[in-house]
Amino acid sequence: MAPTRDRIVGAAEHVIQELGLVRATTKEIARAAGCSEALLYKHFRTKEEIFLAVLLERMPALRPATLRLGARVGQGTIAGNLEELAGSAIEFFRRTISLAGGMLGDPSLLNGFRQMLAASGGGPHVPVTLLASYIREEQRIGRVSQDADPDAAAALLFGACFHRAFLANLVELGPDDVLVHELVRTLLTGLTPR
Amino acid sequence: MAPTRDRIVGAAEHVIQELGLVRATTKEIARAAGCSEALLYKHFRTKEEIFLAVLLERMPALRPATLRLGARVGQGTIAGNLEELAGSAIEFFRRTISLAGGMLGDPSLLNGFRQMLAASGGGPHVPVTLLASYIREEQRIGRVSQDADPDAAAALLFGACFHRAFLANLVELGPDDVLVHELVRTLLTGLTPR
Repeated sequence: MAPTRDRIVGAAEHVIQELGLVRATTKEIARAAGCSEALLYKHFRTKEEIFLAVLLERMPALRPATLRLGARVGQGTIAGNLEELAGSAIEFFRRTISLAGGMLGDPSLLNGFRQMLAASGGGPHVPVTLLASYIREEQRIGRVSQDADPDAAAALLFGACFHRAFLANLVELGPDDVLVHELVRTLLTGLTPR
Repeated sequence: MAPTRDRIVGAAEHVIQELGLVRATTKEIARAAGCSEALLYKHFRTKEEIFLAVLLERMPALRPATLRLGARVGQGTIAGNLEELAGSAIEFFRRTISLAGGMLGDPSLLNGFRQMLAASGGGPHVPVTLLASYIREEQRIGRVSQDADPDAAAALLFGACFHRAFLANLVELGPDDVLVHELVRTLLTGLTPR
């Protein structure tokens, strides 16, 4: 059987998926983990800490993808590299957006999360920064236009992936891979006629 | 004094801002509006209907901006037209994202909202479609590259604005107008060297 802490994090992930963040109380999480609330609080000080552990430990799809991208400067096509990252980003956001969005509906939870992020230096802006670094490196070796703003380019691509995951919760959409291909192609060519 | 229905919608907006969507119960909303819950239910069948009224009636910044944009085909600069829309979009998303995000944390609320959207034909994808239509019209008259995908371009710009509003809830960011300028400039020029 998994160690208690892992069991609690896994149970929390399950409860969030089933009941939503709003109803994912420590009581429900303890019940799903088959432990007491007292034991739960031996491993985590607050509910926010459990949610952060779910985000960091159960939904790790994005960090490997941004690290892989950083190792690809000057290799393959930029289109291929960006498409792979965008695919991972949409998958990651689809899995995490209920958790991330749900926090916005609860100011006290949001505040606790802001403080944890400020203390850790981490947060949802970090992958955008890593994507911008990759684009800046490609720019340095001449594969990206000197006119382009790498931070803006990263914000456009990540933003589209994030918004896509949000929309998917509310309306029916076409397949992701078609979108990813067109997002990257349009970002590379730009709108101004050549 | 405002008619009861307006007072309820205004009270709901206030309660959502103060307590978050999670704690914005009909009991709290009725108390803030100075009416009984019974009276509240004479005007709205469900809490979802009140939230939808808040979205549609109290946060109307985006529709006028997309309509203005549609009237600007072939006029001014594309950069100027897109910057104005992006500015309105960020402002709109900043005001609405707690409400929109909060719904993702509550599957029953989200489901009610999905059904209302499906019945109305409206939803958060509509402004993206209107932006895509504007870009397609500019493409038709030769001001946008024939290679560009208007739907992808609209998804990139709106997505960046939406993600920005989300990040602003969690981490400190620079000024919006600088970002908007760079987003539009990068979308127009593209990343591929000319």
